[in-house]
Formats: sequence, C-alpha cells, structure tokens
Amino acid sequence: MKNEKWVLKQRPMGKPNIESDFEKISEEVRKIEYGEILVETQYLSLDPYMRGRMNAGPSYASPVEIGGVMEGEVIAKVIESKSRLYQKGDMVNAKIGWQKYEVLYENEPSISKINTPKDLPITYSLGILGMPGRTAHLGYFEILKPKPGETIVVSAASGAVGSIVGQLAKLMGCRVIGIVGSDKKVNYCKNELNFDYCFNYNTQDIDSELGKLGENFINMYFDNVGGEISDAVLNHIALFSRTAVCGQIAIYNSPTPPMGPRVARTLLTKQSTMQGFIVFNFAHKYEEAISDLSNWIKEGKIVYKEDINEGFNNIPLNFMKLFESENFGKLVVDVRS
Amino acid sequence: MKNEKWVLKQRPMGKPNIESDFEKISEEVRKIEYGEILVETQYLSLDPYMRGRMNAGPSYASPVEIGGVMEGEVIAKVIESKSRLYQKGDMVNAKIGWQKYEVLYENEPSISKINTPKDLPITYSLGILGMPGRTAHLGYFEILKPKPGETIVVSAASGAVGSIVGQLAKLMGCRVIGIVGSDKKVNYCKNELNFDYCFNYNTQDIDSELGKLGENFINMYFDNVGGEISDAVLNHIALFSRTAVCGQIAIYNSPTPPMGPRVARTLLTKQSTMQGFIVFNFAHKYEEAISDLSNWIKEGKIVYKEDINEGFNNIPLNFMKLFESENFGKLVVDVRS
Repeated sequence: MKNEKWVLKQRPMGKPNIESDFEKISEEVRKIEYGEILVETQYLSLDPYMRGRMNAGPSYASPVEIGGVMEGEVIAKVIESKSRLYQKGDMVNAKIGWQKYEVLYENEPSISKINTPKDLPITYSLGILGMPGRTAHLGYFEILKPKPGETIVVSAASGAVGSIVGQLAKLMGCRVIGIVGSDKKVNYCKNELNFDYCFNYNTQDIDSELGKLGENFINMYFDNVGGEISDAVLNHIALFSRTAVCGQIAIYNSPTPPMGPRVARTLLTKQSTMQGFIVFNFAHKYEEAISDLSNWIKEGKIVYKEDINEGFNNIPLNFMKLFESENFGKLVVDVRS
Repeated sequence: MKNEKWVLKQRPMGKPNIESDFEKISEEVRKIEYGEILVETQYLSLDPYMRGRMNAGPSYASPVEIGGVMEGEVIAKVIESKSRLYQKGDMVNAKIGWQKYEVLYENEPSISKINTPKDLPITYSLGILGMPGRTAHLGYFEILKPKPGETIVVSAASGAVGSIVGQLAKLMGCRVIGIVGSDKKVNYCKNELNFDYCFNYNTQDIDSELGKLGENFINMYFDNVGGEISDAVLNHIALFSRTAVCGQIAIYNSPTPPMGPRVARTLLTKQSTMQGFIVFNFAHKYEEAISDLSNWIKEGKIVYKEDINEGFNNIPLNFMKLFESENFGKLVVDVRS
C-alpha cells in the first residue's frame, strides 16, 4: 500500500511558497507489528502554529526536519489493528501530519479515541472540541482569570480560537472587542457572535478606534496575532490588565524577532502581566474544557463555524489562507479525496 | 519660619539638567491648625522612580507639576504638634519631597512613625527597611515565586533593590547572576554579596557572557533597568520563566517607548510571564517583609550599603548619580546641613 505525504522541502524565508517549500512524496506503508495500528487520515486540521514549526529556531516544540512530514493533527480511521486498545473502524485523533497513512504504536501519547458527542460533527474534534477549543477555554479562564464586566480585546477574533474566546467572554458578562482582517469577518463577529465591537485592521486604525472607546480600559487581551495590532491594544490597557499570548501569526514569518515598541515600561506603569502559554500544559483540565464547550454548543450559547476544504493535493494551498485574512472559521481539509 | 524647596522648573527632555530643570525656592511656612503637625526633614531618599514623575506622560502615579516640589520620601522630625497622634520629637517617614519643612494633617496616609529596630540605623527606613527593601522582598517572593536551585538574573544588582533581591535569592539556595555598570560594583556583588556571577554591562557583552553559562537557563529575571540588558537576558530564559518588571531606568529618560525586539514570541515559545508591579499594592505584606529583613540583617545574612551625602543644596547633584553608574548603595541625602 502506498502512503502519500507532504514534506518540508526547504525552510521558508518569510511567507511560505507552495512550489518551493513543500513537496509531495510517495512511499510504501510498512506492515504493522503486534501492538500497532494502521490509520487512514480522514480530515486534517490546518493551524497557524505550523508556520512556526517550519523555522529552524527555537520554539515550544521541535521544528519539522527538512524532508520530514509537515506536522498536524488529524481525524483518522483505524483500518488495521494488532492492538487490544483499538479496533478496525475506530475513529481517532492523532498527530500524524500531512499524510494519508501511518503506523502507530498503541501507546503513542498523541492518539486518542474521539469522544465528540454523537449529535455534534466529528470534525469538531479538530476545533472547538479539540486543541483550538481547549486553547480558548484554558487561555481565557486559567491565564486571563476574567471577572464579569471586564473588557477584553481578542485578535484574530473570527478564527478558531478567537471566536470561542470572545463568546466565552460574552457568556460571562464581559464586553468584547474583536479585531479581524475583513469586513465580512467584522459582520460575522458583530451579528453572529454578538461581540460588542469589531474592527478591521486592514481598513481601520486600531489604535484610534480603541481610543474612541475609552482611556486605559482594556482589562484583558487575548493575543493571537502580535505585531502592530498588539502595539495598538497595549496603548489602552487598564491597571492590572492581563495579556495572554497565544499566537503570533503576524511575526511567525520573521526569522528573528522584529522590532517594536518596548512593552516593559507599559507593563510596569500599568502593573500588568503578559504571559505566553501553550495548551499542552493544561492537560489536567482538558476534560473540563471539552465538557463545558459541548454543553454550551448544544444549548446554543456558542456558535462554531468550520471552513472545510477538499483534497489531499490542496493542503499547501489551503494552508496559505492562514496568512492572507481569507480564512474564516476553523480550517479543515477533507483528505479522503 | 522659612521653608526651602526644590521644584520642577521644566520637564527634562532626556537626562535631567541641574541648571535648567530644577529651581530652589523659599517661602513662608504657615501656622499649623488643630490636628496638624510641622515636620523638619532630616534625610531624603533619592530613587530612580523620581525621573518618571518628571515626565508629563502616564505612569503609575501622577507627574510632578511644573513649579511643584520634587517628590520623595524623607525621614522627618516632628517639631511642632497640634495632633494627639504625634508628639514633638517623634521621627516619621513621610512623602514630603525635596523640602525642609512641611505642615501635615495627622491622618495623611503617607506619614508613618518610624519603627526601625533601635539597634539599626534610622536611615534604613528609607532603604532596606523601607520602600526599596519591601520592593525587593515582595517582588521576589510574590511576583517571581522562586524555588530553590533556580537561576535568577538581577539588573542594577548592587543597587538599593537589586542588592537585596540577590541576597534573598542566595539565602534560599538560588544561583544569582548580577548585572551592574562598573568593575567596583562587580567586585562588591561577588565578594561582599556572594553572587555567583556578576557582569559589567559597560565593558562586557551581556548576551555572550550569559550564553557561556548555559542555554535557556534563566528561571527568573528581576528587571530594574530594561532596554538592551533585558534583550540580552530574555535571549536566555528557560521554559516557564518569570520576569518581574520593577524599574526601567534605561528608558525613563525617553519620552515615548523606544523600539526593541518584540518579546511576545519569546514569552510564547518559553511559556513565560512578564509582570510589572508596584510595591504599594502589597501593603498587607509590608510588616512581614520588614520583619524578615530586620531579622536577616541582624543575623548577618544580608548586608546593606548606604551612600549618604550631605547638604540640602546638593540634592539635584546627587540625584544625577542615579543616571551615571556612579551610585553605589542606597542614595540618601542628609539635608540637615
């Protein structure tokens, strides 16, 4: 049986290039041994963090090697099993990356059986009931430590993580200001997610828009983006504010940290905290997060949008959407075709 | 009776200028009313934060007005009292600034009777047993949340706050790296304070010196300085590191935040926290901090150095020492002469 996989051909300088940075290769799938399973990818999640893994520099995880398969979480079906833990036909989440088949040892920590409630789509396990949902829930409750009535700014507010953070904040009586990259997203955040305000950084001056809403009034900032958007937000933070640094998509493409206004004095005068966090260190809270989110979806308190695309061959093309303000909803590729 | 006071003549651009930015003026002291006391300044504390108050921009406290007396904490003697709370001859700490006399209402929150143990100098109430000591103790224990065996970097390590932070860290079994501005201070930190390492930022490349000690090894950073020293330190922080932003003397003279490498990505990949803090929000812990510090001084576990200067007329001249790597030990002016 032939596997197909997308590998990293060379490390991108700046924005990835579909032609030169990725390569699709084919290889024989090996036979499974006792204790192993063979899985077939059904859906692949595409996420901003993948750009970071393409760099050689230090990150919170090892980079993808040149020639190595691009990293990513998938929904896969067990098509052969010599494990007592999994049966043929089981659906699992696993981190096998941009490829069609993989042999996995049964105790590989990244595999887990999918326990998405039956009345919700299985693809939710890659989004609101998976890593992005847990990131939103735990970043919001554990890092930002919100109080009702506080004001939160969320960047990439219509995205997989941001859209959930903003809705959690609305649920508990906070004022939510979204920042997005298109008017379509602005409308979505205001009309469907019920955010109080939403600004388009491509057409509006975020600093001055925030300035119109008050002075030193932002209690929490959930930062998915970084760069100049963060500069604008930090100009308006309140005393004792908290910033959760969740993603830095604005600067993932930069080989060294770009320059920006120094934040230490702002943090000092505002007695404020900026904290980077990775959801994997909150594993003890995953079950709680997923349970909360499932209930809130079913009760209609949280809405969730997916952007499901077709075709294994189109993975790199779809990945590029993350860098072009075109992505709208959790980006997933159905790779069965 | 004539009061003399140093007032802010104009807001400095960059480093203050003794001639153009300060002015000494004289005025009549008014008679005290019932419930008031008249105090005579004995010692004035000079501290880096005062530079921040000379700017018009936002800080954690209101700026000094043009024509207003320069802010500062003093040791003063009550020389006349119509209050039941204070008697003639009482020694108090008060925030009356750079002046010789002041009439104070008895319930003014900034006054407190000095309770420095009798076997320690009264001037310690302006330093290790006052604001700088509390800042060191509370910033270290409450913000950095240290564990034995961790590595801490302290900037301005021979200063009023830094020298205490480093010694507290040594006391609990941490590895201490100081950063200072002269070889004399390096020797002091290594030989008298027993820091493990100390570097001179005027003659050594801090980034490369830290790089020789390990990779991603700094668990805590007590930042009194900011600017390029912080850039160097943040290049070497460990996973889950904590930075306490206590002072930013390197950039107090800058009217707008200067540019520097963006820190958000570093905080994200290292899952680290940067927190600005002001000691005044830990008032409920003051007594504990002072009690700890008094005991450790008497037991010889902490050494404390003062730089006591003479003369009310020399206050601005002495203040400038804070910006010139000349200051060594807690800067105090005996203003009785």
